[in-house]
Amino acid sequence: MSQKDSVCSRSYFVVVMVFVHVYILNVMALLLYVYYTSESAHSPTDSGALPPSGQGAAPPQGPLVPSQPPSPEPVSQQQQQQQAMVLGRLRRLEGIKVGHKQKVDLVPNKIHYLKTLSLKPLLFEIANFLSEEECKLVIHLAKLKGLQESQITPSDIQQEAIDEMDISKEEIFNLLDYNQDGQLQMKEVLTHTRFGDGVWITPENIREIYTGLEADPDGNGLLSLEEFKQLNTNAFQTYLRQRGVQKSELVRNSKHTWLYQGEGAHQILRTIRHRVIRLTKLPPEIVEHSEPLQVVKYDQGGHYHAHHDSGPIYAETSCFHTKLVANGSTPLETSCRYVTVLFYLNNVSGGGETAFPVADNRTYDELSLIQNDVDLRDTRRNCDRANLLVKPLQGTALFWYNYLSDGEGWVGEQDEYSLHGGCVVTKGTKWIANNWINIDPDAQRQNQFQQAVSKYTNEEGPAEWAVDNIYKDLHVEL
Amino acid sequence: MSQKDSVCSRSYFVVVMVFVHVYILNVMALLLYVYYTSESAHSPTDSGALPPSGQGAAPPQGPLVPSQPPSPEPVSQQQQQQQAMVLGRLRRLEGIKVGHKQKVDLVPNKIHYLKTLSLKPLLFEIANFLSEEECKLVIHLAKLKGLQESQITPSDIQQEAIDEMDISKEEIFNLLDYNQDGQLQMKEVLTHTRFGDGVWITPENIREIYTGLEADPDGNGLLSLEEFKQLNTNAFQTYLRQRGVQKSELVRNSKHTWLYQGEGAHQILRTIRHRVIRLTKLPPEIVEHSEPLQVVKYDQGGHYHAHHDSGPIYAETSCFHTKLVANGSTPLETSCRYVTVLFYLNNVSGGGETAFPVADNRTYDELSLIQNDVDLRDTRRNCDRANLLVKPLQGTALFWYNYLSDGEGWVGEQDEYSLHGGCVVTKGTKWIANNWINIDPDAQRQNQFQQAVSKYTNEEGPAEWAVDNIYKDLHVEL
Repeated sequence: MSQKDSVCSRSYFVVVMVFVHVYILNVMALLLYVYYTSESAHSPTDSGALPPSGQGAAPPQGPLVPSQPPSPEPVSQQQQQQQAMVLGRLRRLEGIKVGHKQKVDLVPNKIHYLKTLSLKPLLFEIANFLSEEECKLVIHLAKLKGLQESQITPSDIQQEAIDEMDISKEEIFNLLDYNQDGQLQMKEVLTHTRFGDGVWITPENIREIYTGLEADPDGNGLLSLEEFKQLNTNAFQTYLRQRGVQKSELVRNSKHTWLYQGEGAHQILRTIRHRVIRLTKLPPEIVEHSEPLQVVKYDQGGHYHAHHDSGPIYAETSCFHTKLVANGSTPLETSCRYVTVLFYLNNVSGGGETAFPVADNRTYDELSLIQNDVDLRDTRRNCDRANLLVKPLQGTALFWYNYLSDGEGWVGEQDEYSLHGGCVVTKGTKWIANNWINIDPDAQRQNQFQQAVSKYTNEEGPAEWAVDNIYKDLHVEL
Repeated sequence: MSQKDSVCSRSYFVVVMVFVHVYILNVMALLLYVYYTSESAHSPTDSGALPPSGQGAAPPQGPLVPSQPPSPEPVSQQQQQQQAMVLGRLRRLEGIKVGHKQKVDLVPNKIHYLKTLSLKPLLFEIANFLSEEECKLVIHLAKLKGLQESQITPSDIQQEAIDEMDISKEEIFNLLDYNQDGQLQMKEVLTHTRFGDGVWITPENIREIYTGLEADPDGNGLLSLEEFKQLNTNAFQTYLRQRGVQKSELVRNSKHTWLYQGEGAHQILRTIRHRVIRLTKLPPEIVEHSEPLQVVKYDQGGHYHAHHDSGPIYAETSCFHTKLVANGSTPLETSCRYVTVLFYLNNVSGGGETAFPVADNRTYDELSLIQNDVDLRDTRRNCDRANLLVKPLQGTALFWYNYLSDGEGWVGEQDEYSLHGGCVVTKGTKWIANNWINIDPDAQRQNQFQQAVSKYTNEEGPAEWAVDNIYKDLHVEL
């Protein structure tokens, strides 16, 4: 029978076998998909699919693997990838409650515990995240690279930007007069003076300036519109420049440097990056394209007043790291540091705690940070009033989110409660390092960035990454 | 060639085709698995796989569908079901931040918003969850069934249990003396008197009792061990029984009834159950085997002092609803109400707010609830001091979790911040209803219960469900 012949032919058999193998491949693809999906939805105690840290294996450079499937309908592999480019979900660890401990698998044959320190911000502590040797090596590398002042004194800064502002005295007064009572209270002046030139203003400074400038003739500690109108726009800055500013009067009194952590970097820095990936469970591609490691040295007397590592997000806000791929002009910019991982590199003889002044407060109100001349953001004076104080301990890491979830698996609003600072070092030196994970709250822009950097990397080699170039000159932050 | 013959034989072709079909089936099974996995991991704004509420369709009675895969390894369908019986994950909605609003799909062609009221407890408000007609109908059904006092006055209660307690005066004193200073402060006595017989004790009551019993001869408001030893164990209760207790002096001053919501129940009650399933995204089988609807009426002057809807969980704690399947004796029992959904059925002319005294407090400390004679749990006096007050509004639902997550997708520790009460009704009448979703913190026990009740249901018919039987006699709660 010719029919039977065709069924039994060798070519027909090959077709059937190809058919079978396509199915086997499909099954394997689905198994992989299920594996990634369930891995991401899994409890933080399970080991991920990442290479063990310390091996220096490069993570895949392709498009983002979706942490959660974007649609309940089954999709083809191709569809999956296309949707993943736009809709990948980010893992976010659970805090459960203050004091909760969960195991994490970071280093082979070693158990680490993630202890919840606060829910607002979502903040964890991991003891022995780095070994003593790793800490020492990072300090050594930072010294080799060389550190520079984190902030320079304002006498060196041009005041042109402020001089050129085309805004009337009444308008400024109204902006400052938060409660609209026609008077500027101490806290109203204090809240806004940080937008100046990096000098930290205390209530005593204000009184000194009022007296020096004869700005408050009736001496009631309040500025009326009339009194305010008499002042030169740059009166505060001008006064301070003439009087001279000490380093201890700056917002930030430290030195720092940046250590490149990408492919080809020192083994120890690669290890730390991989460990951070396992800790945060964020997509390796995003972490790999984030800022380099910042190493900070606080000498005795050093401090960093309370601040947010990354700013609020408005409709027109763009991120430093994705602005190259963003279209059009961007009036507002911030660093979009979704996560901060802070490492304590040494034990400090005195002071140097990390303060979270409003952690787990019931409410957040910028103005209520300053009460009766007590500025809770002031880490030289008021660390003892902070809701949470973390003592530096060599090898310990802190890990927190600077942004909330958007409820859809991506970056949402700024978490204002993440306000934190470095208390004054009363004795000895303090060394820390910061790893920030930069994610654009606009998922599409982040994905465009990933594609662009991935392409750039492949063409130009790892040492020329855009991120490093962007941050190479960002030594001074005001 | 005989070899070629065997390859081309009809039976070999059949074998290959069976092989192909097995793969097709496997692919379909995996697709189904992915479908369920991704559906459960989906954002709360998406419509689930449940039948639209109002159609009265019965949800599946089979084993729990796992909301999250229990293992990153791919598993066969059979394995999945076996594991699901033990390890199904529960959905938990995201609060994001106070004031956050998210859309929920509860009723066809209608949009509801879930507004986050607090994170501790995780508490949401849904306006217009019930229509005016639905509210009226529920009240009507409750009246038809008939309401009874939620709590009876203690003169009717046997005191034998307390009399029979074999515990020395010193031991009781030490238990009460929280700060171990050898004296019983007012707050130490107040905190523990609720374990008595349902009478709410105020600082004035304590002073009245001290005077009436001449218990505090030195009149310093503190009880020493010597003074305490002079008291009869039941002194407080005996004194109050002789003096007589008003309804307003009880912990709870209301009437209530239970409305069966299972299969065959009134259409409106089925609708509400289905809507609650869509709201909470919890497994339908669990919700269907939870307590019936409790309808509560507060007359003018009615109240319910602040309490937890369900107690803390210790190793030996068992749940009312699963104790039939639990092995061995159970010294501690609680209702294991994972979720409370509270419906306001009418507008109240005056008072009757729901108070959450410590919502989003930075810390929870039972003793600090009582400060300087002010007991924050007292909803007749101190509702104005509560962190959160919700005004009753017809049709609005509140939804909160009485337990935290365990971090593994199941029920964890009690959320102490879920403390809440009903403020005194100053004018008119207040009608509310409560839906509780009972889940055993021991997942295995919950699964055994599901299987047992499912079997029972199939054999005996829906009206004889164990849960209804358990709760039928639970009219009086102390």
